[in-house]
Amino acid sequence: MIEVIALDGDDTLWHSEQLFVDTQRSFRELLAPHVDLDDDALDTRLVEVERRNLPTFGYGVKAFTLSLIETAIEVSDGAIPARALQEVLDLGKELLDHPVQLLDGVLDAVDALTDRYRVMVLTKGDLLHQESKVARSGLAELLWQVEIVSEKDEATYRRVLDRWSIDPATFVMVGNSVRSDVLPVLGVGGRAVHIPYHVTWVLEHADADPDVHDFPVLASMAELPACIAAMDGDSRGAEMASS
Amino acid sequence: MIEVIALDGDDTLWHSEQLFVDTQRSFRELLAPHVDLDDDALDTRLVEVERRNLPTFGYGVKAFTLSLIETAIEVSDGAIPARALQEVLDLGKELLDHPVQLLDGVLDAVDALTDRYRVMVLTKGDLLHQESKVARSGLAELLWQVEIVSEKDEATYRRVLDRWSIDPATFVMVGNSVRSDVLPVLGVGGRAVHIPYHVTWVLEHADADPDVHDFPVLASMAELPACIAAMDGDSRGAEMASS
Repeated sequence: MIEVIALDGDDTLWHSEQLFVDTQRSFRELLAPHVDLDDDALDTRLVEVERRNLPTFGYGVKAFTLSLIETAIEVSDGAIPARALQEVLDLGKELLDHPVQLLDGVLDAVDALTDRYRVMVLTKGDLLHQESKVARSGLAELLWQVEIVSEKDEATYRRVLDRWSIDPATFVMVGNSVRSDVLPVLGVGGRAVHIPYHVTWVLEHADADPDVHDFPVLASMAELPACIAAMDGDSRGAEMASS
Repeated sequence: MIEVIALDGDDTLWHSEQLFVDTQRSFRELLAPHVDLDDDALDTRLVEVERRNLPTFGYGVKAFTLSLIETAIEVSDGAIPARALQEVLDLGKELLDHPVQLLDGVLDAVDALTDRYRVMVLTKGDLLHQESKVARSGLAELLWQVEIVSEKDEATYRRVLDRWSIDPATFVMVGNSVRSDVLPVLGVGGRAVHIPYHVTWVLEHADADPDVHDFPVLASMAELPACIAAMDGDSRGAEMASS
């Protein structure tokens, strides 16, 4: 029996990674006059800085903006003018203030699911930014809970399940990241649905093992209610068969 | 009857604002060769930038670091070298990685309170940083819940009380900020205890009205258990008198 559906935010409910990709294009253009690196080399340096800063900064746009500034200083050997760094900082502000654009089918899917299940948003990133996106999404009134976490690993899922007294067997996580939304949930005995976004941040890359990890993959949120009904029907069927 | 004690984190459980004060001193020294402003004028400009950025960045060290960088660029008219801005960014990293230093009496006070009450930490700031401070504080195992919020206003307190089904009449908030820990809690029908820290961030300044706002003021956390016992005794007495 499914009772709780947890939905990831960025790239599951609303567009996010595409905005980062667009920002990185603007960043490359800003740096071009001051740096002699091709696009791939610059992207690689940025990912190195982000990976190095992750334990201290965590996820989210403010962390990203600080890493953009640090990368710009590093790759220019300190030659980049302060005014250009202010433009980099302003790219971060634009990201934080960007309107929330829901993915196709999200509103109807969430609305349909709340008829039968407790639906929560479970997302990571900047606290204020994620809260603000939930508030601006138009989904807030449909949600049972909003949990914003600093990491999505097995320890986090155990803590959230424990916090709300949720039996993992009744819990389904839905998201675009195999690394954050699928593997750790299966690891704690829950179920997961993967809905890939058309672009994935390199630090979110992970591979599932088809011999070990069993989870549905959907093309869009519009397919979620039918998928959940089938999963729930299966488990109801199994329960009836075993009783 | 008191049931839940919520404790603020920064400057209530552990030192924080003093570290920001020290960081601002280092910031002034870093800027001195590039900027012709006295200390007070520079501090004023920084507060202006922080206030302007607050709705977009929220609270916490990453927000502070971005505002330091923006201030350095502004007050130097873009003349500050990128290397100096990296040093500013590194000041932010030092703040994030700084060891947690509990205030006097905190551990014993929290330990004593947990014998009788559900004790939670209710704090605002960077999600990862606050979680990390709770984890490093040695208090985590004593706590019933940890709630990290993006703002501490009446709406937030209502949401937290509602989330955990807490009757405001049974709730006491303890903290160093009249603006964040006292006034909004009284506003939603809870009680508050004020334990001032020796320095208060200018954006946390607020005045209570002694004719309207009634709350104890303590010199340190060591006085909290006795204060709570007296408040609880008073309310138990009042309850017995009315029954």
